[in-house]
Amino acid sequence: MIGIQIPGYTFGTDEVAKSPITDEEFDLLKQTVTFTDEDARYLRMAGEVLDDQLEQILDVWYDFFASHSHLARYFNGPDEELNRNYLAAVRLRFEQWIRDTCAAQYDRAWLDYQEEIALRHTRFKKNKTDNVLSPADHIDLRYVLACLYPIVATIKPFLAGKGHSPEEVERMHQAWFKAVVLQVTLWARPYVRPGDF
Amino acid sequence: MIGIQIPGYTFGTDEVAKSPITDEEFDLLKQTVTFTDEDARYLRMAGEVLDDQLEQILDVWYDFFASHSHLARYFNGPDEELNRNYLAAVRLRFEQWIRDTCAAQYDRAWLDYQEEIALRHTRFKKNKTDNVLSPADHIDLRYVLACLYPIVATIKPFLAGKGHSPEEVERMHQAWFKAVVLQVTLWARPYVRPGDF
Repeated sequence: MIGIQIPGYTFGTDEVAKSPITDEEFDLLKQTVTFTDEDARYLRMAGEVLDDQLEQILDVWYDFFASHSHLARYFNGPDEELNRNYLAAVRLRFEQWIRDTCAAQYDRAWLDYQEEIALRHTRFKKNKTDNVLSPADHIDLRYVLACLYPIVATIKPFLAGKGHSPEEVERMHQAWFKAVVLQVTLWARPYVRPGDF
Repeated sequence: MIGIQIPGYTFGTDEVAKSPITDEEFDLLKQTVTFTDEDARYLRMAGEVLDDQLEQILDVWYDFFASHSHLARYFNGPDEELNRNYLAAVRLRFEQWIRDTCAAQYDRAWLDYQEEIALRHTRFKKNKTDNVLSPADHIDLRYVLACLYPIVATIKPFLAGKGHSPEEVERMHQAWFKAVVLQVTLWARPYVRPGDF
């Protein structure tokens, strides 16, 4: 698998955290965002559309982070300057995250990996994967949640870039929107007081 | 103000919680969802478009909740049956929430009221406003977050229902999307471990 070449990408390995979300709970969450098999199909279509545009997408997202110091600071080193190695390592995993989201194989291994990603935003695991000394020991949950908007909105032109019909583009985009809400929701879990998630 | 007639709607009164979010923090959050003055203008346009469709919108949302028992149960009484008075009281405030979202007067009073709404989802205040005995003493944060999808997606046909151009409808919808992400983010605050929001 392509993942083996990406530092810190541990999907499907023993190093990954275990999600406490049961299959039944996950099913209820999918129902809440109205995620269906048809969405999974459109996500796989999106995966084909986006596959050779991943660098450009990441350029857009990284430009967004770079132009907002309250977001860019999460990638700072101990000198309070951007740590370019850290940025580069996260970038490869971010590209793979797009592939995994579009593959839409939302099974137990994927669910566990969402918990792993969640923890890597928190003080439990941030900085540890890439062994960096960042002054920011966690990402404030407010930004994990609020970045949902740019991550959903900015993908649409890329979905439209390969000549699909407006209806197909819209369906791919809605499936992407649902998938991102699903994941951001799962990523909130370790931030929350026990029993309230 | 119309709000005076809505039971439990305390916007702008002394009974409302105080938001701990500073003006600067709120500004950073608005930047994260790319919320601009233009979005505020399109929200006010949306307010005019939606104003005589609020009942139909609430019908759609309540049908959605009613058809998903894991969501409907938050409105149950002690007998584990839907409490219709509770549903009706929340419904009036939910309509007013659409008006307030579209008014886009996101000042200190509004920010305080987001904290009040947030607390009313949690075990700090759920059931107290309407003085109901519901077995659910809080709404799990996962559903507060995941309901973002249906709340954003289902509004679009209503925005398109008054003959505005597709571009205007799209801009109203994007402004609505940003405003809902902003609010759902603020509503997560009291669920989160201190220092991690």
